[in-house]
Amino acid sequence: MISFANDYLEGAHEKVLQRLIETNMEQEHGYGSDSFTKQAIENIKEVIECQDASVRFLVGGTQTNQIVIDALLNKFEGVLAPETGHINVREAGAIEYSGHKVLTLPSVNGKISAHSVKEYLEVFNADETKEHMVLPGMVYISFPTEYGTLYTYEELEDLSRVCHDNQLPLFIDGARLGYGLVSEKSEVTIQDIARFSDVFYIGGTKIGALCGEAVVFTKNNEPKHFISTVKQHGALLAKGRLLGVQFLELFTNNLYFDISQHAVAMSLKIKQAFLDRGYELFFDSPTNQQFIIMTNDQVDKLKQHVSFAIWEKYDNDRMVVRFATSWGTLEKNVDELISYL
Amino acid sequence: MISFANDYLEGAHEKVLQRLIETNMEQEHGYGSDSFTKQAIENIKEVIECQDASVRFLVGGTQTNQIVIDALLNKFEGVLAPETGHINVREAGAIEYSGHKVLTLPSVNGKISAHSVKEYLEVFNADETKEHMVLPGMVYISFPTEYGTLYTYEELEDLSRVCHDNQLPLFIDGARLGYGLVSEKSEVTIQDIARFSDVFYIGGTKIGALCGEAVVFTKNNEPKHFISTVKQHGALLAKGRLLGVQFLELFTNNLYFDISQHAVAMSLKIKQAFLDRGYELFFDSPTNQQFIIMTNDQVDKLKQHVSFAIWEKYDNDRMVVRFATSWGTLEKNVDELISYL
Amino acid sequence: MISFANDYLEGAHEKVLQRLIETNMEQEHGYGSDSFTKQAIENIKEVIECQDASVRFLVGGTQTNQIVIDALLNKFEGVLAPETGHINVREAGAIEYSGHKVLTLPSVNGKISAHSVKEYLEVFNADETKEHMVLPGMVYISFPTEYGTLYTYEELEDLSRVCHDNQLPLFIDGARLGYGLVSEKSEVTIQDIARFSDVFYIGGTKIGALCGEAVVFTKNNEPKHFISTVKQHGALLAKGRLLGVQFLELFTNNLYFDISQHAVAMSLKIKQAFLDRGYELFFDSPTNQQFIIMTNDQVDKLKQHVSFAIWEKYDNDRMVVRFATSWGTLEKNVDELISYL
Amino acid sequence: MISFANDYLEGAHEKVLQRLIETNMEQEHGYGSDSFTKQAIENIKEVIECQDASVRFLVGGTQTNQIVIDALLNKFEGVLAPETGHINVREAGAIEYSGHKVLTLPSVNGKISAHSVKEYLEVFNADETKEHMVLPGMVYISFPTEYGTLYTYEELEDLSRVCHDNQLPLFIDGARLGYGLVSEKSEVTIQDIARFSDVFYIGGTKIGALCGEAVVFTKNNEPKHFISTVKQHGALLAKGRLLGVQFLELFTNNLYFDISQHAVAMSLKIKQAFLDRGYELFFDSPTNQQFIIMTNDQVDKLKQHVSFAIWEKYDNDRMVVRFATSWGTLEKNVDELISYL
Repeated sequence: MISFANDYLEGAHEKVLQRLIETNMEQEHGYGSDSFTKQAIENIKEVIECQDASVRFLVGGTQTNQIVIDALLNKFEGVLAPETGHINVREAGAIEYSGHKVLTLPSVNGKISAHSVKEYLEVFNADETKEHMVLPGMVYISFPTEYGTLYTYEELEDLSRVCHDNQLPLFIDGARLGYGLVSEKSEVTIQDIARFSDVFYIGGTKIGALCGEAVVFTKNNEPKHFISTVKQHGALLAKGRLLGVQFLELFTNNLYFDISQHAVAMSLKIKQAFLDRGYELFFDSPTNQQFIIMTNDQVDKLKQHVSFAIWEKYDNDRMVVRFATSWGTLEKNVDELISYL
Repeated sequence: MISFANDYLEGAHEKVLQRLIETNMEQEHGYGSDSFTKQAIENIKEVIECQDASVRFLVGGTQTNQIVIDALLNKFEGVLAPETGHINVREAGAIEYSGHKVLTLPSVNGKISAHSVKEYLEVFNADETKEHMVLPGMVYISFPTEYGTLYTYEELEDLSRVCHDNQLPLFIDGARLGYGLVSEKSEVTIQDIARFSDVFYIGGTKIGALCGEAVVFTKNNEPKHFISTVKQHGALLAKGRLLGVQFLELFTNNLYFDISQHAVAMSLKIKQAFLDRGYELFFDSPTNQQFIIMTNDQVDKLKQHVSFAIWEKYDNDRMVVRFATSWGTLEKNVDELISYL
Repeated sequence: MISFANDYLEGAHEKVLQRLIETNMEQEHGYGSDSFTKQAIENIKEVIECQDASVRFLVGGTQTNQIVIDALLNKFEGVLAPETGHINVREAGAIEYSGHKVLTLPSVNGKISAHSVKEYLEVFNADETKEHMVLPGMVYISFPTEYGTLYTYEELEDLSRVCHDNQLPLFIDGARLGYGLVSEKSEVTIQDIARFSDVFYIGGTKIGALCGEAVVFTKNNEPKHFISTVKQHGALLAKGRLLGVQFLELFTNNLYFDISQHAVAMSLKIKQAFLDRGYELFFDSPTNQQFIIMTNDQVDKLKQHVSFAIWEKYDNDRMVVRFATSWGTLEKNVDELISYL
Repeated sequence: MISFANDYLEGAHEKVLQRLIETNMEQEHGYGSDSFTKQAIENIKEVIECQDASVRFLVGGTQTNQIVIDALLNKFEGVLAPETGHINVREAGAIEYSGHKVLTLPSVNGKISAHSVKEYLEVFNADETKEHMVLPGMVYISFPTEYGTLYTYEELEDLSRVCHDNQLPLFIDGARLGYGLVSEKSEVTIQDIARFSDVFYIGGTKIGALCGEAVVFTKNNEPKHFISTVKQHGALLAKGRLLGVQFLELFTNNLYFDISQHAVAMSLKIKQAFLDRGYELFFDSPTNQQFIIMTNDQVDKLKQHVSFAIWEKYDNDRMVVRFATSWGTLEKNVDELISYL
């Protein structure tokens, strides 16, 4: 059965695999000090046009969020995040496990505003016993969000400014970064992401790699002894080359963005097909995930042919479902899906 | 320059890579519920002849030690381990980071004895204020040890008995398990390992895989909600297939043991060459690591041609160095190394 | 200046002090194994009419919340609590510091309902990937709440039922327990509290003691090795007698409830005075805290004579302020306060 | 039965109690911002002659060790300590619970040397993969040690120098500080302690108070947001006055040192009595604890009249026992003890 259940259904892009094969028997240093990793870092720094960047590779998204946040926060600090943020709802308490509270802000379409951050800080700072509250120590957002939506240029710029005015590092979760940046609706580039954030990551697991996320500290601000922190979290790969080689290929000849483009094109084709048939969108997503409102009946029928995710109940008769595409989505599968609508 | 610096110098065994390529575009469920993972689990259970086993795949050794120990211990408990154990000296405090003390026992050649465990418990239990001490909650050992040495059948049996008599789960770190089991000096089989332990892991990172360790709970004792624990530690791979596929191939047609055999044969050839030339061994290792005492002069000369690990200072004129082999060691490199002695 | 700023303005009730003096030079065992502690435990068990209870004394409220929650939860679990609950907003992240997420439920007047717990569990259990979410492991409420309000008998009974139907221990924070129970509006007794909850604590710090909270596990359910857990949290008093003696006196001749009565009487007198003068209540509290809406002007004037707490901004012209009474509140101070209105 | 089992057998010195009574009904701010606490801090700063000091009060010794160490260490660091140090053996893993490894150094009579610290650092710094080891972040010692012994002036000076040369804060656990400083064998004063250390604490629980330890950061180095850290650990007393008042009295008119003197005088009288009768000392302690080697027979007989602590087995026929004195020890009890020898 064809599946649009998520964006990690296949292995890796064939060019990524090919590079793994070619480099396989070269003897290399461990723990990220191999030559492939070094070259991948250079390529990424060139693409993001950020000379103050340092780049580190980790294995998965939750791990990356946990480690970056734990490394940046003081022990008595928490992280401001949208109430719908991945770290708040879908990471099994990984942030709290490392000792930090997720301080939630109201979100609209998965996004928070500079205004809500400012307001939170004002209330906090006005409190006479703020020592009894968790000090906000950084801000976390996702680009694109968990709902496929995008911050505008101005929204990001404002968030960045309020963060920097208040010495709060801004961390952008880019698990699906490519799928956001290549969208025609995106007003920002990867260079903007680097400039507006203090740290962000370039998602590989969902975009062409077997696994791997590239963490970029953008302001000469890699935490001291970051490798020890990674090791302490059990996240330091002996064969760091596995990550280095994959990102080296993804950041050679624009591959990362080219394959992201394909995913978004497939996603928009699905969206248009639903719209053409009168379906309602739950979120208007310009990226690789589409959230559609379907009747329970329609869901039951489609489920016989296609795998997709039930997102949540909409009302007694309808539900919100999600169709995700990726670098690996075959156009013939998209056509098949559309044929069932 | 040829290298014997460690046992993770290359990528993966070609058959493992081949299987990744063949399965690459099959759409599969995430987080370890894919069909490859399921088949790999079946194959492993068959090999270890343990019907009460449950098997889970994790990415690396430190991660595995941290998660297994954290999942098995109550919050107020610590883990008994050899003072030279990997968790005590080489994991950047990953165990303590998760809240648990490593309670050290004196070790000889990297090994602890049933007797020392018993003695520790006697002193502990005799203490009138033992509530002020960390309760020992499990026992950790490595097979083979960090020094390449092996527990005898009797040693393991005794350890297992004292652990079970005292309700202490016995955890065997098998980062290099294959290299221990195929040694001619090994008195135990993988079935014995499963029987004597409560949980052990089959190291993949050092034996043929790009990454991956197979955790085996052997006594119908997988901790409740283990997947949540793995996620909470940031260690749940979206593409769990990456681990499943690799272990599926390693546990098809005896590949895991065959490639382990090669590594040990290469290691013994190196050892014999050193002995033939009158060098002294620091440990007498029958597995894939050799610890040799060399003069500073000899070290300096050899370093011009070969990469290897400086272990520790022996005396003012000599040091202990380590040569490691693996599934990927080329015999021509071994011959070249020997030519320099 | 007279103060109603909080309910821990004075030292201890004179009878409590007296008992400390009388017992001062008796040589006693440490760490809570002294004879006073033992007697205090017996007295409390008699009062709460709960034979399955075990009682332990801790020093303060946040400490108690942290330790009880940490001792009851599995590592992968979180605690359900009102979004306005003390553990969520006023404990500097003490729960998260111990590794657990506070899972918030919407609250009305500081209270949550059985219905909202049930609904949370339904959504949680219906989720296909609930392994990625924090497992709810217990429920926390306060009696009285942080806003001085009380659960009705039926509300508590319903909460208790839904908790027990779902194997979720119910924990009642009783930092101000006495002030709730003696209220004329209280529909529940301390015996009800013991019956409905799985663990609760009897607040001493705010009711007559220098410090101290009596934790009561009510269902033969004291966590294994609880003393080790207390020690591990740095909370085991060498001179446990300090807590034992105080609670012994508080639970002799009904002292705890008598002095609570006084505080509530003073509080109601203040409330009536405000109502008589046309002020609006922010919460209608029948216990020892009154939340009044005052204009900024009124606040400024009153502040010249009386100390009280600014709670929050109400609108541009008004704010919510709090007046707290305690066992130590002098009626002449209450009269003085009223004279300024 | 008279007891020398430990140094927390009684309540508080009568003058301390008296001061609590006198100040009892004064309304004061909470959480350590009361006037008594402020005055106590001034008195302590004057006594220690350290203008760069900041002083904070905590409740007990393990709590103090946990919080100070957690506040000073980076997340990836551990604390160097004597293998016999209280934090390593008697605190139920409180340090590890907060995420930090205790890195042990060999100890002689409870003491470590500057040399052993230096050596540890040399080995650590020479390690090529030190990122895999726990970074030493501070040094912990006790004065007097857990065995009643004292560092000489030179030993402390050397330790202090090696610590400062290596940017390692030196933390002195002074649970029994008074009993060490007033000893005739002490070569150091409290001013020296302040000068040599970066942080130390003045033990109150064992010296005249019901509870309480005064933490002194000596080098303008109180960790940022220390109060939040204390609250996060559940250790912030609402009625901070309880600690402030007690230390205010202890540091008025030299009371702390006078009552320490008494304890040591009683201890030396006991020691001399044992020596006169030919008993052997296990440690030669000039402070308030005496460790004596007694035959099993002698122990059994004495136990019928006197309570004391069994320390450890010496050989099959003998054991080490401990007699502790304190500010509260009655000379007639000492005489009675001696009469049984």
